Amino acid sequence: MRIVVDAMGSDNYPGPDVEGAVLAAREWGDEIILVGDRNRVEAELARHDVAGLNIEIVHASQVIEMTDKPAESAKAKTDSSMHVGMGLVRDGKADAYVTAGNTGGVLAVATLYTLKRIPGVRRPALTAIYPFLHGYTVAADIGANADCRPEYLLQFAGMASLYAELALGIEQPRVGLLSNGEEEGKGNQLVKETAPLMRQAEGLNYIGNVEPKEVLSGATDVVIHDGFTGNILLKSIEATASMVRKLIESEIRAGLVTTLGGLLAYPAFRRARRRIDPDEIGGAPLLGVNGVVIIGHGRSNAVAIKNAVGQARKAVQGGVIEAMRARFK
Amino acid sequence: MRIVVDAMGSDNYPGPDVEGAVLAAREWGDEIILVGDRNRVEAELARHDVAGLNIEIVHASQVIEMTDKPAESAKAKTDSSMHVGMGLVRDGKADAYVTAGNTGGVLAVATLYTLKRIPGVRRPALTAIYPFLHGYTVAADIGANADCRPEYLLQFAGMASLYAELALGIEQPRVGLLSNGEEEGKGNQLVKETAPLMRQAEGLNYIGNVEPKEVLSGATDVVIHDGFTGNILLKSIEATASMVRKLIESEIRAGLVTTLGGLLAYPAFRRARRRIDPDEIGGAPLLGVNGVVIIGHGRSNAVAIKNAVGQARKAVQGGVIEAMRARFK
Repeated sequence: MRIVVDAMGSDNYPGPDVEGAVLAAREWGDEIILVGDRNRVEAELARHDVAGLNIEIVHASQVIEMTDKPAESAKAKTDSSMHVGMGLVRDGKADAYVTAGNTGGVLAVATLYTLKRIPGVRRPALTAIYPFLHGYTVAADIGANADCRPEYLLQFAGMASLYAELALGIEQPRVGLLSNGEEEGKGNQLVKETAPLMRQAEGLNYIGNVEPKEVLSGATDVVIHDGFTGNILLKSIEATASMVRKLIESEIRAGLVTTLGGLLAYPAFRRARRRIDPDEIGGAPLLGVNGVVIIGHGRSNAVAIKNAVGQARKAVQGGVIEAMRARFK
Repeated sequence: MRIVVDAMGSDNYPGPDVEGAVLAAREWGDEIILVGDRNRVEAELARHDVAGLNIEIVHASQVIEMTDKPAESAKAKTDSSMHVGMGLVRDGKADAYVTAGNTGGVLAVATLYTLKRIPGVRRPALTAIYPFLHGYTVAADIGANADCRPEYLLQFAGMASLYAELALGIEQPRVGLLSNGEEEGKGNQLVKETAPLMRQAEGLNYIGNVEPKEVLSGATDVVIHDGFTGNILLKSIEATASMVRKLIESEIRAGLVTTLGGLLAYPAFRRARRRIDPDEIGGAPLLGVNGVVIIGHGRSNAVAIKNAVGQARKAVQGGVIEAMRARFK
């Protein structure tokens, strides 16, 4: 397998990106293609022991920065690491592309300039893979499409369901539609119009409306929402988890006995944190474009990048793209 | 001050409702009017020491149950504790109405059959008051209007801002519009159309788009969203806080040393929990109807009911309804 890693993706590129690529090459033995400024990538690689690893560098002279406007930079910076990297996948020279770069930039470069959409797919969807207690939940869309039509949501469900099954190994993934109540008939106009389409869709294990608590408890394997609502859900889960953790920590530090207790309980906190740590997932797929694209957080560290490569491997091994081409033909 | 408490509101009525009313009468010395089945309320009251308290019972022969369909039951059960209770407020015989009952029922009875809307208000809004680390954040709408127009959101902002200022004592409350990005121009169609109206509105301290992390960190005093999105935000905050707590507890119990640490740190956990405990708020206002209505959780206990009465007192003392009548005239 040949996997492209964008060396110029993360907030602190190329350090975490290159180190993550090295870790991935060492763990799985796949061929890794680092795309980015050759001099900077070489300098970074020199800091690691790469003996016996299969790592290649492909030069790209430009970078789509986190602060760049996606549409403009995707159009202007045609030799960016995103263009070059996804170009390799498009041309069959690599099997997957992994980046922690500007999400809007990836979306624009993938959709408009390189991979394009899988024929029949109306809108690509950004996803998150939640690492909840029970396992994984695939969420789509989390921000590519702020306003959606029912048919888009139906396609997101089909794509996310295939990903959950083929890449994550979840049999007959349960698909829920995020709503403000579980009962049939609850929801905004979009949800009410989407529900009947979901119910009638073939090959979809649709379980009806789900509320946030069902998403978090693992009552569904896939949760579908428009990109605006999905983004709010994702960010409120992240913000709340962070707040509760900080609150407990500050209350523990407020007394001597509780501080001692906190020290003794520290391994439990660390384990709890790791069980819902996004770094353990690394990245999630951009669904609907004609090739495997895995997007990680801008603040990804090397471990997150390595795990994003692991995610890409699962998608390639599962034959996700081939299955989607067949489904939407 | 005379405050009506719905004796038949909570999931376990009339126990928590009556006990909460007793606690409130004792704490603040106000006159409390318990509305509900006289026999059941009297039996419940007999279990408490009410000597010297100013508690009256007004009979209502019907109950809008949690399982009732709001529109139907609001129309059919015209002698419900909701009809009778809000009727007392409408007729000037009481200053506020507090209930832990069927939210949709309250909304329907208030809007269509008793208090009606404040003239000029297009849609009433359900609210939540978040008890975050920094103080309070008022959120509207959390479910009365799944689909909204920009003008509704603008009115929600005006109403929630007045409430934050007059009832909660927050000077020049900062008003944020929930979006999937802080930058101007981010958002779905509704947010994009609402933002300019907010910016131009007089008497509104509008601070722009806010994301969930700003809501949780106290960067805004008021957060405005359509009822669908607001409901998802509220429920995802609740579900995540609960999940993180359970996760930490289970990891602590997984080892002997960490269990000991957890026991020592227990007071800190209890303090942390109390700082974000909805029972400490008790209830939040239904904004836009022509009288003070405070709605609590169905699972309210007596303390929550008492605090909901406290919330009603603040709304009455702050002159919230009079200010809204003036604003929307």
